[in-house]
Amino acid sequence: MIDVGIVGGSGYTGGELLRLLANHPKVKVVVVTSRKLSGKPLSLVHPHLKGIYSLNFEAPNAKEVAERCDIVFTAVPHGTAMDWVPGLLDAGTRVIDLSSDYRLPVDVFEKTYQTKHRAPREAVFGLTELHPEVAKANLVGNPGCYPTGATLAVAPLAKAGLVERVVYDSKSGISGAGLEPTETSHYPNMAQNVIPYKLTTHRHVPEIKQEMTRLSPGIKINFTPHVVPAVRGILTTAHVFAREEAVETLQDKSKVAEIYREFYKNAPFVRMAERVPSLASVRGSNFCDISFEPELGSDRLVVISAIDNLVKGASGQAIQNMNLMAKLDERTGLWFPGMAP
Amino acid sequence: MIDVGIVGGSGYTGGELLRLLANHPKVKVVVVTSRKLSGKPLSLVHPHLKGIYSLNFEAPNAKEVAERCDIVFTAVPHGTAMDWVPGLLDAGTRVIDLSSDYRLPVDVFEKTYQTKHRAPREAVFGLTELHPEVAKANLVGNPGCYPTGATLAVAPLAKAGLVERVVYDSKSGISGAGLEPTETSHYPNMAQNVIPYKLTTHRHVPEIKQEMTRLSPGIKINFTPHVVPAVRGILTTAHVFAREEAVETLQDKSKVAEIYREFYKNAPFVRMAERVPSLASVRGSNFCDISFEPELGSDRLVVISAIDNLVKGASGQAIQNMNLMAKLDERTGLWFPGMAP
Amino acid sequence: MIDVGIVGGSGYTGGELLRLLANHPKVKVVVVTSRKLSGKPLSLVHPHLKGIYSLNFEAPNAKEVAERCDIVFTAVPHGTAMDWVPGLLDAGTRVIDLSSDYRLPVDVFEKTYQTKHRAPREAVFGLTELHPEVAKANLVGNPGCYPTGATLAVAPLAKAGLVERVVYDSKSGISGAGLEPTETSHYPNMAQNVIPYKLTTHRHVPEIKQEMTRLSPGIKINFTPHVVPAVRGILTTAHVFAREEAVETLQDKSKVAEIYREFYKNAPFVRMAERVPSLASVRGSNFCDISFEPELGSDRLVVISAIDNLVKGASGQAIQNMNLMAKLDERTGLWFPGMAP
Amino acid sequence: MIDVGIVGGSGYTGGELLRLLANHPKVKVVVVTSRKLSGKPLSLVHPHLKGIYSLNFEAPNAKEVAERCDIVFTAVPHGTAMDWVPGLLDAGTRVIDLSSDYRLPVDVFEKTYQTKHRAPREAVFGLTELHPEVAKANLVGNPGCYPTGATLAVAPLAKAGLVERVVYDSKSGISGAGLEPTETSHYPNMAQNVIPYKLTTHRHVPEIKQEMTRLSPGIKINFTPHVVPAVRGILTTAHVFAREEAVETLQDKSKVAEIYREFYKNAPFVRMAERVPSLASVRGSNFCDISFEPELGSDRLVVISAIDNLVKGASGQAIQNMNLMAKLDERTGLWFPGMAP
Repeated sequence: MIDVGIVGGSGYTGGELLRLLANHPKVKVVVVTSRKLSGKPLSLVHPHLKGIYSLNFEAPNAKEVAERCDIVFTAVPHGTAMDWVPGLLDAGTRVIDLSSDYRLPVDVFEKTYQTKHRAPREAVFGLTELHPEVAKANLVGNPGCYPTGATLAVAPLAKAGLVERVVYDSKSGISGAGLEPTETSHYPNMAQNVIPYKLTTHRHVPEIKQEMTRLSPGIKINFTPHVVPAVRGILTTAHVFAREEAVETLQDKSKVAEIYREFYKNAPFVRMAERVPSLASVRGSNFCDISFEPELGSDRLVVISAIDNLVKGASGQAIQNMNLMAKLDERTGLWFPGMAP
Repeated sequence: MIDVGIVGGSGYTGGELLRLLANHPKVKVVVVTSRKLSGKPLSLVHPHLKGIYSLNFEAPNAKEVAERCDIVFTAVPHGTAMDWVPGLLDAGTRVIDLSSDYRLPVDVFEKTYQTKHRAPREAVFGLTELHPEVAKANLVGNPGCYPTGATLAVAPLAKAGLVERVVYDSKSGISGAGLEPTETSHYPNMAQNVIPYKLTTHRHVPEIKQEMTRLSPGIKINFTPHVVPAVRGILTTAHVFAREEAVETLQDKSKVAEIYREFYKNAPFVRMAERVPSLASVRGSNFCDISFEPELGSDRLVVISAIDNLVKGASGQAIQNMNLMAKLDERTGLWFPGMAP
Repeated sequence: MIDVGIVGGSGYTGGELLRLLANHPKVKVVVVTSRKLSGKPLSLVHPHLKGIYSLNFEAPNAKEVAERCDIVFTAVPHGTAMDWVPGLLDAGTRVIDLSSDYRLPVDVFEKTYQTKHRAPREAVFGLTELHPEVAKANLVGNPGCYPTGATLAVAPLAKAGLVERVVYDSKSGISGAGLEPTETSHYPNMAQNVIPYKLTTHRHVPEIKQEMTRLSPGIKINFTPHVVPAVRGILTTAHVFAREEAVETLQDKSKVAEIYREFYKNAPFVRMAERVPSLASVRGSNFCDISFEPELGSDRLVVISAIDNLVKGASGQAIQNMNLMAKLDERTGLWFPGMAP
Repeated sequence: MIDVGIVGGSGYTGGELLRLLANHPKVKVVVVTSRKLSGKPLSLVHPHLKGIYSLNFEAPNAKEVAERCDIVFTAVPHGTAMDWVPGLLDAGTRVIDLSSDYRLPVDVFEKTYQTKHRAPREAVFGLTELHPEVAKANLVGNPGCYPTGATLAVAPLAKAGLVERVVYDSKSGISGAGLEPTETSHYPNMAQNVIPYKLTTHRHVPEIKQEMTRLSPGIKINFTPHVVPAVRGILTTAHVFAREEAVETLQDKSKVAEIYREFYKNAPFVRMAERVPSLASVRGSNFCDISFEPELGSDRLVVISAIDNLVKGASGQAIQNMNLMAKLDERTGLWFPGMAP
C-alpha cells in the first residue's frame, strides 16, 4: 500500500481526493491536515465522507507529514504550497501539488500571480497525456482546470502543425472558485445566469500558452472563461483556425479523427465522443470527452471538450499522476463511470 | 464471480445498476436487455459508461437470460416485470425486481395500480434494514423510493410504539419520474419551481402503510410528495405525533437517539447525522442520513431523512439485496461516499 | 402623486420596491437611503434598474426623510427599523415597515428575537386580506413571507371553525435569506439540494400563530421551513386536520370551495387555482395561488399556497398596504401577471 | 387604443406578448388564436395570466383576425406564418411576424430552412436599432434571438470598418427551444449541464451575416450556440478581431466606448454596462446590456451582450416594432426594469 497524505484537506480538491481515494485499492490515506480544523473529524466539513473515513484532521509540519507518507498531495491555496513543498521534498517524500505554484517557470509565475516565488523547485507539468515524464518526477505541478480541458482539446492538431489560432471559450461550474461563499457564488446571483469574467486576463492563460506553444511554436491563443449554473465541469469550445496550408485538412473529418485517434491511442481517459460531449457525460469521472466539427467552406474547426473540473481538472488528474509515479496502471482507482443523470 | 443480468437496461435504474456494478468486486454483468436497442452499445444511451462496458444491449427471452445469470435485476416498467419474473424464476435464477409488481399483496397491488396481476409470486419486501429474510429469498420486491426514505425515518419510533400519526412531506428530485420527457420534467417548468402532485393519492402510500403498520398496528399515515429542482434525491420531512403516553419520551433527545442507535446498530447504510441532512450529503451513495428534533412543549417530533432516490431508493438498495442473497457483506461494492459538492 | 421614500434600499426588498414602484402610476420615489452607498447610483447594486431611475442613494436622518415623503417604506434589518420608525412617525409621515419589528406584541417580539424593543408603537399587521384596518393605520407591520402564504392558505377554514390542527411544511427560495453570501446560499451547497432548517423554532411561527389563533382560538399550529433551489417563491403545503365534527365538511370539495370563494370574494390577489399551484404561476407577481384536496376517508385536507416571497411575501404586499392607506384601488401598480416561463 | 391580435398565442412568445401587453397603456388585445385550444381560457396554458385576461382562445381565419385588429403579431412556428401573413396583409392590417419566415431573402430562406417559401412578401428586418424604416412597414420580420444579441454587440465596430472577423460564442437559456418537452429540455439532461449544438450550422447564421455584412461588407462571421441551465436569456461572447489597420483603435477603451455611445445615442434599450453584463441584469426586460474589454497586446477585443431571449430577443422587440409602427415612443409599455434577483 502507498501511504498518502493530504496537506490542506478541508477544501473542495482535498475533499475530492478523499472521495476518490476511498476506493483506491493501493492507497491508504494516513494523514489529512488542516490548521483550522485540527482534531475535528473529516466529516465535519465533508458530511458525505461520514462512516467512510475515521480520520481526524491534524496539524503536523512538513517533516512530520513526509515521514508518514510515500506521496503527498498539497491541496492548499496558491502561494501557500511553496511553504510546504520544499520541506516535504527535503524530507524525502514525493509531492503532487494541486496549487499553481509549480506549474510555470518562476518568472512567468511571478508575473502572473504578482507574488514573489519563495521556493522554486524543479517540477513536471502533470498533464499526464502529454508528459509521461511525471513517472520519474519527485514534484508534479498538477495542471489548472481550464488548461487541462483546453490543451487536451487541441493538442493533436497543434502537434500536427495545422493550427494558426485557437479561440478558447470556456464554461465552468462554480466549484472551481472554491468553497468560500462570494458574491458570484451566491445562489441568487449564479442560478439561471451566465457570468463571463476576466475576459482577457485569466491566470490560466500562461499555462495554456506554455503547453500549446511547446506543441506548436507561434500558435496564437485567446481565452475567455465564464461561470455557468453548474457545480462541476468545464465545457471548452475551441474555435480552431487552420493555417492557410491546412484548411483542407481540417475540413476532412476522417483525417482529423485519425489525428486524434493516433495521438490519444494510449490515453485511456480521453474519449472521442460520437455525440457532442456535455458536462453530463463526464460528471464525477476522470474522463475528458472530445468531439469536433469542421465549418463547411471555412477555415474554422470547432472542438468541444468536457471534463469534471474537480476530477480530471484537479484531484483525479492528481491521482492519475500518483499512479504513474508509483508505477501503477494509470487507471487504478479511477476507472469508474461518471454519475448520470 | 456472480453472473448478473439486467432486464431493461436503458432507463435510469438500469443505467444506475450499471454504474454501481462497474466496480463491484464480485459481480460480472453478462447480459443487459433492451428490446428497442438490441445490438446497440450501452454507451448509446448511457454515454457516461463509454469505455467502461463493451457490452451491447440484447433481446433474449427470460429463459435465455436465466441460463446465463445467477441473479437478475428486472428494471422494467410497472406491469411489465410480471411478464419476466415467472420465466426467470422457473428457469432457476433469483430475481430482484425494481418495479412495483412484487412489493404488495396482490389485492392491494391491483387496487393501487388498477391492473390485474397476471403472475403473483411469493416475494420478500427488500428493505434490507427491516427484512433480513431477503438473504434467503428467490424473489425480492425492491421498495419504492419514497417508502424507503419514509419508512427508515420513523421505523425505530414506530416499532417502539410511540407514534400516533406521521405526516410525511417528501421532496423528490425529478429523476424519479424516469427518462421520458414530460411537461413536468421540461426544464422551463421544473427549474426554480416546486411542484406538489398527487397530494393525497400517491401509489407509494400502500407500501409505506404496509411497512409502518407491520411495525406499529393502527399507526396513522399521511403522505404528500413534491418534485423540486434536483435530479437526484429524496428529502422526507416526517412530522411525527406522539401517542398521548409517549409525548414526554419524544421530547427527550437522548432517549430518542438511543432508540435509533439501537435499532440501526447493524445497519451500516443508515447514518445518524449531527447536522440536519440534505440531499447533498448522500448524492450518488447508498446512505440514508437521518436526524430529528422535538418541538418544545408540543407532541411533535420532526424527523428528516435523505437518500439518493436512484441509489438507496432503487439500484443501490437492489445491489444491497443482492449482496445479502449472495452471502456477501452488504457493503460490498457499495461502500463509497457520495459526490459533494 | 404620492412621494415615497425607501429607508434601506440596497437589499432585496428595497430593490424589489424599486422594481415594482417603477411603473406605479401614482407614486414618485423621492429618496432611497443607504448609509454605506450614499452618493452612489442605485444601479451600482441594482444593475437591472439602470436607466430606469436616475436617483443616487442618500444618507438623511428620519426627520429629513419624513419631510420629503408622504409614505415611507423601511426595508432595514430586524432590530434596526425601530431606530427609524418613531422619528418618521413623529415627523408626520406614515410608515410601512418590512422588518419584523412591528408585527408582534412587544413581549412576543422580545422573546422571539431575543432583543429588547427600544421603541414600541401601535401598528397594524399588514396582511391586507385579513386586516382592512390598514387603510387608516399610520404604521403597518408588513407580514413575514412564511406567515403570508401560510395564513392565507388556511384562514377561511380556520375562520369557519373547522380546523383542529395545521401542519405547515414550507419550501422557500433562498432570496428570503437576503443578499449576503452565506454557507447555505453558496451555489454548490444550494443547487440540487433541499435544506430543512429551524425544524421547530422558526421566528415566523409566532406571527402564524397570532393570525390563526385570532381566527380560531385554540387551533394547533406546527411549522417547518425548507430552502429549495429557487431564487423566489414560497410553496406552503398545509396539512389541515379537521375537528372531529368537521371531518365530513372538509371531505366535501364543493363546500370547501364555497368557503374559500366567500372568504376571498373581495381579495383580487388571491386566486383559487384549477391546477395545483407552483412557484411558476406567481413568480414576480403579487398573487397568492391556492388549491386544496381532501384525503379520501381521512381527517386530512391538503391545501397548497404559492406566493413570490419578495412580492406578496414582502415588497408587493407593502405596496398593496400603501395603496389602501392612500385610498387607491389595492391593485394599482400591482396588477400585472408573473413571469413565465 | 390600438386593437391587437396574436395569431398563435399558446406558445412561449405568445404568452410573453400577453404578459408584456397586459400593461401597455395604448394597446387592447382583442383576439388570441389557437386552433387546438379554441374556446379555452388563456389561463389554461398560461396560469400566470389568470385574472389578468378574461379572453378565450379563438380559431378565426386571417381575414376575421384582420378585421378586428390594427396590428397583428404572428407567433406561429417557422413555415406556418407564411400561411397567415398574406391573408392578414391583404385584409388591410399590419403584421409583425415572430417566425423566421420574413427575415431573409427568399433564396436564403429556402436554403436555410429547406422549405419552399409559399408566400414571399416585402418585409423590414425588425431590429429597430438598425432599421428605423420599420416605422413605415406593413410587414416586419422580427429578428431571431441570437441575431439580436450578436448583431447589437458588434454593429458599431463593424459599421466603423474596424472588424476583420467575429467569432460569436452564444449561451442561451432553453426557453428558446419552445414549450414542447424534448430530450434536451428534459430537466435531468439540462440541469447542471452545458450543451453545445449545431456547432457550425445554426439557422440563425444567415441573419447575423446579413446584418453584419450590410454594415461591413466582407466581414468574417463564425457562430456557435450552446444551451445552459437557464430558462431565459442569451449571453453572447463576441471575440472581435481587428482589421490590421484597426488593431490600435480597438485597444483604446475610450475610443471604443465613444463609438458605441455615438452609435446607440438614440437607442434607449441598449445600455453600456459598467460591470460585465450577465443574464441577471436583463431578465424579463427589453434591455440589451453590452460591455467590452480589449486583450492587451493582441488583435482581439471581447464584447459581451446580454438579452432576455423572450423579450428583446422576441416578444419585447416585437412590441418595440409595434410602437414605432404606431408612432409611439418606442419605450411605451416596455420601460420597466428586469426582475432581480
